[in-house]
Amino acid sequence: MESRTSLEIIARMESEFPGKFGIPRQSGLVEALKSTLVFEPPFRNPDALRGIEGFSHLWLIWGFHEAKREHWSATVRPPRLGGNERLGVFATRSPFRPNPLGLSCVKLEGVELQSPRGPLLRLSGADLMDGTPIYDIKPYIPYADCRPEAAEGYAVRPGRLEVEIPPELLNQIPPDCLEALRGVLSCDPRPHYQADPDRVYGMTFAGLEVKFTVEEGILRVQAVEKA
Amino acid sequence: MESRTSLEIIARMESEFPGKFGIPRQSGLVEALKSTLVFEPPFRNPDALRGIEGFSHLWLIWGFHEAKREHWSATVRPPRLGGNERLGVFATRSPFRPNPLGLSCVKLEGVELQSPRGPLLRLSGADLMDGTPIYDIKPYIPYADCRPEAAEGYAVRPGRLEVEIPPELLNQIPPDCLEALRGVLSCDPRPHYQADPDRVYGMTFAGLEVKFTVEEGILRVQAVEKA
Repeated sequence: MESRTSLEIIARMESEFPGKFGIPRQSGLVEALKSTLVFEPPFRNPDALRGIEGFSHLWLIWGFHEAKREHWSATVRPPRLGGNERLGVFATRSPFRPNPLGLSCVKLEGVELQSPRGPLLRLSGADLMDGTPIYDIKPYIPYADCRPEAAEGYAVRPGRLEVEIPPELLNQIPPDCLEALRGVLSCDPRPHYQADPDRVYGMTFAGLEVKFTVEEGILRVQAVEKA
Repeated sequence: MESRTSLEIIARMESEFPGKFGIPRQSGLVEALKSTLVFEPPFRNPDALRGIEGFSHLWLIWGFHEAKREHWSATVRPPRLGGNERLGVFATRSPFRPNPLGLSCVKLEGVELQSPRGPLLRLSGADLMDGTPIYDIKPYIPYADCRPEAAEGYAVRPGRLEVEIPPELLNQIPPDCLEALRGVLSCDPRPHYQADPDRVYGMTFAGLEVKFTVEEGILRVQAVEKA
């Protein structure tokens, strides 16, 4: 029996994250985060989306294209556990898995059937980097996919940081991306929960280079520049 | 940029369904349905499962290995809509998709770290055929994956048939698979919701060939034989 199968990229994500840094660690954490799914030329067929508008949420199966490694490792250190504890790769959603597939539940905000680039899906809540290759789109079916009784293991809903943006920096941020930026920052984009209050972190989001510090649960934006 | 990626089979399912007929149309519909996930030799590493027992539910990303077609079609006719209405393939969980990937939420009943065939995952509620290739296993993370607010579109929870098994046939069914068989039959295994009350359908489950008829919401088992 064949042991390999080959996947074709059907679409790509357009999001406000040019790099991995700052992307929320799961989908759905920041609803204000908008993105667009653009089909690849062979898949620009509005018929393939007929009826999709009846669903409010979709599954995306996508590729960790920036996190590929030649070999997989049986254990990984999830950032959620401070980066010190090792867990089995199948007990995590780590990118470093035997098959580098990601799974995200996103909200479907709108369907644009005709655009110069073919049909577009307007999404929110996605945790995906700009350019992420998409392999499949499926409707979220509540009776099968929504399991309120599920045990969360170590993956408890993450706490939020309070976000402070000084008034003089607010006018550097386009109003239509302020809420999303606040949401992203509140998810604590620091790597591995570092705890140095003097360290200045930088994140690129929506064409802005945002610098911030974190102290005692409060994230303070220190500078905002055009990226 | 590369437009294809290749997946390796990491495991296979062992289930009571030798064929497609009778498999519930989504996972989770029949909790009594037990199955076992057996890793392929290169992936028989107990470390890769460390911590997985903290989760009650898992995602499986798997391959529609019996339903491959050379070409994908933009629209499909979901059995749920009687097989008459055409919907876009991305508005369905149909097997006939550009990339033949399936997605199922299953319950993790137990982890056996050491067996002659390496580590095993004992599962329930899976909607998978025996031998189904598995590409990825991920923990179900309630805060990201459970969306009670999601709109169900046409995919409402399916109704159930009442199941009648005559007493003289009951002793042909091993007691430990009776509940699962009842569950599977109650999901209405008929293709395309055919409505001929005289037609006898057959289904193979757990080594049994089960014949039945359906009339006015009641499924009557007519014969049970060793398959």
